[in-house]
Amino acid sequence: MMRGSRLIALLTDFGWRDPFAGVMKGVIAGIAPRARVIDLCHDIEPHEIDQARFLLRSSVPYFPKGTIFVCVVDPGVGSARRALCVESGSRIFIGPDNGLFTEMLAETGARAREITNPRLRLPSVSQTFHGRDVFAPAAAHLASGVPPSRLGKLVRDPVRLPPLDPVRTGRRFWSGRVAHIDRFGNLITNLPAAEFLPPAVRGAAVKAGFQTITRVCRSYAEAPEGELFLIAGSSGAIEISLRQSSAAKKLGVAVGAPVDLEIW
Amino acid sequence: MMRGSRLIALLTDFGWRDPFAGVMKGVIAGIAPRARVIDLCHDIEPHEIDQARFLLRSSVPYFPKGTIFVCVVDPGVGSARRALCVESGSRIFIGPDNGLFTEMLAETGARAREITNPRLRLPSVSQTFHGRDVFAPAAAHLASGVPPSRLGKLVRDPVRLPPLDPVRTGRRFWSGRVAHIDRFGNLITNLPAAEFLPPAVRGAAVKAGFQTITRVCRSYAEAPEGELFLIAGSSGAIEISLRQSSAAKKLGVAVGAPVDLEIW
Amino acid sequence: MMRGSRLIALLTDFGWRDPFAGVMKGVIAGIAPRARVIDLCHDIEPHEIDQARFLLRSSVPYFPKGTIFVCVVDPGVGSARRALCVESGSRIFIGPDNGLFTEMLAETGARAREITNPRLRLPSVSQTFHGRDVFAPAAAHLASGVPPSRLGKLVRDPVRLPPLDPVRTGRRFWSGRVAHIDRFGNLITNLPAAEFLPPAVRGAAVKAGFQTITRVCRSYAEAPEGELFLIAGSSGAIEISLRQSSAAKKLGVAVGAPVDLEIW
Repeated sequence: MMRGSRLIALLTDFGWRDPFAGVMKGVIAGIAPRARVIDLCHDIEPHEIDQARFLLRSSVPYFPKGTIFVCVVDPGVGSARRALCVESGSRIFIGPDNGLFTEMLAETGARAREITNPRLRLPSVSQTFHGRDVFAPAAAHLASGVPPSRLGKLVRDPVRLPPLDPVRTGRRFWSGRVAHIDRFGNLITNLPAAEFLPPAVRGAAVKAGFQTITRVCRSYAEAPEGELFLIAGSSGAIEISLRQSSAAKKLGVAVGAPVDLEIW
Repeated sequence: MMRGSRLIALLTDFGWRDPFAGVMKGVIAGIAPRARVIDLCHDIEPHEIDQARFLLRSSVPYFPKGTIFVCVVDPGVGSARRALCVESGSRIFIGPDNGLFTEMLAETGARAREITNPRLRLPSVSQTFHGRDVFAPAAAHLASGVPPSRLGKLVRDPVRLPPLDPVRTGRRFWSGRVAHIDRFGNLITNLPAAEFLPPAVRGAAVKAGFQTITRVCRSYAEAPEGELFLIAGSSGAIEISLRQSSAAKKLGVAVGAPVDLEIW
Repeated sequence: MMRGSRLIALLTDFGWRDPFAGVMKGVIAGIAPRARVIDLCHDIEPHEIDQARFLLRSSVPYFPKGTIFVCVVDPGVGSARRALCVESGSRIFIGPDNGLFTEMLAETGARAREITNPRLRLPSVSQTFHGRDVFAPAAAHLASGVPPSRLGKLVRDPVRLPPLDPVRTGRRFWSGRVAHIDRFGNLITNLPAAEFLPPAVRGAAVKAGFQTITRVCRSYAEAPEGELFLIAGSSGAIEISLRQSSAAKKLGVAVGAPVDLEIW
């Protein structure tokens, strides 16, 4: 097994204040002592599957091939929802079958397995923490060379959620969402900048909260003080920003809030 | 020395906003370049030794044998309190002698040493940051193959605190505590679920804040909206939860708050 | 290249809630699979360059020689500001040319290069996330053995900011700043304790907010309940503390606030 596959990345809504992520790493270290673990993000809003999908999609290309992603945003833990292993684009994704991997399943050649092999999980499985008892052990076994086929059988009907893309509502109009808000208060939308910002279009107006923003800047430094502006963010999406301040606070909106786009 | 012992886990009340944990890792990397470090938890409430004991006890079994735990919840730093190395259950615990390791000391064959060897600490020891100057170096030296006996002499009277267990207050009554509150607002009590929840008992009533909870659920998904319920948590303790919401906010209680249990 | 140089430490104002640091680690893992990464601190106040300088200066000595520091506090990202690689004191510093490395540049023999080699960055460079696209790749290439000279040419005029030291305002008077506030609410000033606290002086009075503090303690444990006191902090600076409570809350001051010192 190639060395790159020994990298495990964690994406969860566990936050940093609890020992959840640390205990998952302890479990991984016990099964795959040489695997390396990267915390991709633990601050998905509790149970916000769409936010996790968005951040996963924009982060995955920056990780080496063979990386195993363990994704735990899992309001259905302990219910009958399946545990899933998705092989997609030379990377592997482990987590609950609740739509988290919709984008990965859309890739050519992607395939999903239900994780059922009791030898590849902890001997005792709790009702509330499959990150520790099921997903971390599965990832660690893969990292130590176990082939995915040992986890369980292929399934044809993994859960798929509606696409993350904005919806066209008129010839020049689109309806999007706030996909994420970063530490600086930048609102990351699901509107692709390459399609909807100049030079692709002559101009764009984005409505969020009670404001409409039309100014477009190429960098934070060129933005005027105190005025909201649009910028092509690092994930390729339109972001609403405020120089050295929080656009989210100024607009009073949260993850999931609608953003309306008009282009001309 | 076996490879497993090169794993160091950190449990502190340092939080994530300061360079404290990062500097400890720098110190470890300088002494034991091949040691691997896992952040178990840095968000113990400042100076809450009992919370640290509880989380340590429930996390340790998930780490491989030979793991070295550095635990720093240390209101007495800079005073005459001793620095301790406890060998217990094929794992090692490094930290202040203030009761943090009460549970580890109760294991058969456990032994404690005072860390006194000036060669195994940083040349200059501050009054306020023994995590960096004393505990991280001690752990790193152990990880690089130094035997515990080099740290200092055995001591017979390490500090032990009262047990974390609930207190029986009547034939069917127990008095417990909120041991931890997780990111989701679940209240983790010190009441063992295997002993006090069905099927071990016919029914249970837990009083916390001004409410009494009797509903028991097997998973978050089966819980009714808006109603507090009891569940066997992943640490084996009874947890008070609210589906997709914060039980802690609803009840207005904090770590250490009393929870009263009645069983029938 | 020696093994020690394969250690990369990250200091940013990215916080922990976003995938920024995680994605940087993914990029590093793709270029330098054997490099090890330590999170020194991600909670610099957004855009607070002086706070980053202060924490960097006090943390660097605890990291092994050869460590590569990637420092991203970068309000000018996407503007014409240069990307810098500073070799100083047998360590390497990568980040924006905005004064972050003033202290490192002051070391004997320090030299700075502009990072310009397009082969040592990601193929596509965003306007807003050079941590991922420029700085992490540069550090990873150095960690994998590329010599700094390949990054770009030496520059003679890297940005230098005014010193972090306090300013003398009278024979017995100095004007300083709150350089950092830690998780416990301790105010870390830029006043060197070895110079301004007993036994170096007979006594000291520090004014912060509306209070003047003259009590000096050698440890938190020896401090009286409820009374602000001065202590020699672990970074060598005078700290204003309150036993088992937050001095910052009591004084109502923030990072950057003035602290006036009188000695006698």
